[in-house]
Amino acid sequence: MKSYLFAPGPTPVPERVLLRMAMPIIHHREEAFEAVFEEVREGLKYLFQTDQEVLVLTSSGTGAMEAAISNLFSEGDEVLVVRAGKFGQRWGELAETFGLSPVYLDFPWGEPADPAKIAERLEAQPAIRGVLIQASETSTGVMHPIREIAKFTSKRDDVVLIVDGITAVGVFEMPMDEWGIDVVITGSQKALMLPPGLAFISLSEKAWKMAESSSLPRYYFDLKKHLVSSKKNQTPYTPAISLVLGLQEVLGMIRAEGLEAVFARHHRIAEATREAVKAMGLALFAKSSPSDALTAVVMPETVDGLALKKAFLDRYGITVAGGQGQIKGKIIRIAHLGYFDPIDMFQVIAALEMSLYKMGYPVELGSGLGILAEKLA
Amino acid sequence: MKSYLFAPGPTPVPERVLLRMAMPIIHHREEAFEAVFEEVREGLKYLFQTDQEVLVLTSSGTGAMEAAISNLFSEGDEVLVVRAGKFGQRWGELAETFGLSPVYLDFPWGEPADPAKIAERLEAQPAIRGVLIQASETSTGVMHPIREIAKFTSKRDDVVLIVDGITAVGVFEMPMDEWGIDVVITGSQKALMLPPGLAFISLSEKAWKMAESSSLPRYYFDLKKHLVSSKKNQTPYTPAISLVLGLQEVLGMIRAEGLEAVFARHHRIAEATREAVKAMGLALFAKSSPSDALTAVVMPETVDGLALKKAFLDRYGITVAGGQGQIKGKIIRIAHLGYFDPIDMFQVIAALEMSLYKMGYPVELGSGLGILAEKLA
Repeated sequence: MKSYLFAPGPTPVPERVLLRMAMPIIHHREEAFEAVFEEVREGLKYLFQTDQEVLVLTSSGTGAMEAAISNLFSEGDEVLVVRAGKFGQRWGELAETFGLSPVYLDFPWGEPADPAKIAERLEAQPAIRGVLIQASETSTGVMHPIREIAKFTSKRDDVVLIVDGITAVGVFEMPMDEWGIDVVITGSQKALMLPPGLAFISLSEKAWKMAESSSLPRYYFDLKKHLVSSKKNQTPYTPAISLVLGLQEVLGMIRAEGLEAVFARHHRIAEATREAVKAMGLALFAKSSPSDALTAVVMPETVDGLALKKAFLDRYGITVAGGQGQIKGKIIRIAHLGYFDPIDMFQVIAALEMSLYKMGYPVELGSGLGILAEKLA
Repeated sequence: MKSYLFAPGPTPVPERVLLRMAMPIIHHREEAFEAVFEEVREGLKYLFQTDQEVLVLTSSGTGAMEAAISNLFSEGDEVLVVRAGKFGQRWGELAETFGLSPVYLDFPWGEPADPAKIAERLEAQPAIRGVLIQASETSTGVMHPIREIAKFTSKRDDVVLIVDGITAVGVFEMPMDEWGIDVVITGSQKALMLPPGLAFISLSEKAWKMAESSSLPRYYFDLKKHLVSSKKNQTPYTPAISLVLGLQEVLGMIRAEGLEAVFARHHRIAEATREAVKAMGLALFAKSSPSDALTAVVMPETVDGLALKKAFLDRYGITVAGGQGQIKGKIIRIAHLGYFDPIDMFQVIAALEMSLYKMGYPVELGSGLGILAEKLA
């Protein structure tokens, strides 16, 4: 049986990228690598929509999240942690691990953060030095209102806005410099269409200034050291060379398509999927502000999400993601980010219709597919 | 021009491994990945010669070195740092970054550590809790006497022996359990014949016990979390999946050849190279105890190592490594570790003879090659 990957990371890797990475390995301390890295640096700035350096770490996205914490803060620093899903929780765990004083602001899973409440809290607790949030909460499929939050954090010299953009960068508009975001993070295995193994982080001038007074220990993730190396087209420690070669390739693809077109493609696919899901009588887990990175679908009461996920894999070779943490078994998550064309969505919507039908859920076959065709025609 | 990689990491990746990694990406939270990981865990135990779990980190080897420090010690802990090259220095930088109290024991670059001096220091300063050392100092091509050191560290309940085995594991005999080493580290881009991006670390029971009382902050490199996941054939954060698939392949190759045969092949190649180099009237940088991972060759006074390195690349497409730090330009380093067969060494020895000849050094053409043939026939 063929295999199809529709999980929100890792996402499918384009064939030409797989082949590029299968070329013989080159040495990273040589000119050939440095020429690649120079191009990669430019491509990453384009992707992040920033003039700042975008640093390349050999780690998962979590490594870059840790780097943001350990490079910007000191023990006891107050940070506002916005939690509305599993990855919001991860910010909290990181803050606690490094001895910060996290102030939690919780929103129900499936809902976006309310910027007014964040502003209120910053006002009420002026010692807070940072806001930690996701742009797209991968566990719930909800997009948080980063632009609205940046409007007030960018006015404060002593507060940084740190955005986990792991399923946002390259999916929807989030211009780092224009909006005044201080830290943006992403990973290689999402919209960047690469295997996992690289993480990316960019800091605003305000963030770099804050880093100067940070006293937490860091070595492998010492961003200052990465910055110095990066400007010389290098990394301080041996990078995942084959992934960097693949990165050059995907950044070229993104530039050729154009960022606006990339965003529009994601939106078109996501919007059509959402309509198709609703046409099948299913609800979106996102009560509002759904992310174009993925669609989280609420399981009907009679359908076990784990069983559905298994049916997708066993019957159709399709991997989707299930729910994590408190919503395990209650949702399935269908990815749109990365190497997807509109036509790909017919596979996953067909699998959804057929699986539900087989499991006894009263779905009219073709109901979702018809709407999908209508939206994507 | 064709390209040849003879640097001590990254090392050449076998074609079948490159192709395995070019297969479509799979999801790491699925059974197919877990089956691979189960096999990988067994292969790593075989390679490390241990019954302990060998943890797989997505990072360079430096990440695993940091993990050893941040998981085993607490602020102020005294550790003995053996420095006889660039990577010994890195242990010191890490210890200082994490607030330990490093006690330095320096040996000249190019010489192995003296176990008696290490034993003396441990006796004189009973508060020392760990010995940090390289098994093979990649910057000098010298092998340190790990077995001798383990003889006395293994008798102490309150001292751990932490070995950077980045260019040792899979190169020469260093049975972790039998010798009583507490921590062994390696990276993917050395004897493991993979691209960089994975690091490996294994802890003895004594080391795991010490980790229980460590109070340094760690999250991405939290080894306890990695241990729990690993036993379930998982990693706590998204691993570099394509490299893990390649890892399954190379571990299969190592097992098929047999560890003893792998060690013998490295030794044979290294020994022949050393003899060939000496036959050309050149000196080894290792005054004694040369590592079978690489041969560091001292440049004659009239030859600039940087120019020679450039000649290798420009004339023959061969990448070797130069000297680092205090010996920059004074040596070149030729790798033997990983995917090398005896016959490969004729390329690099030929390039060495011809380059020196062209640069006016009085070398008799064929002098090194002849000895190489004699040793490898």
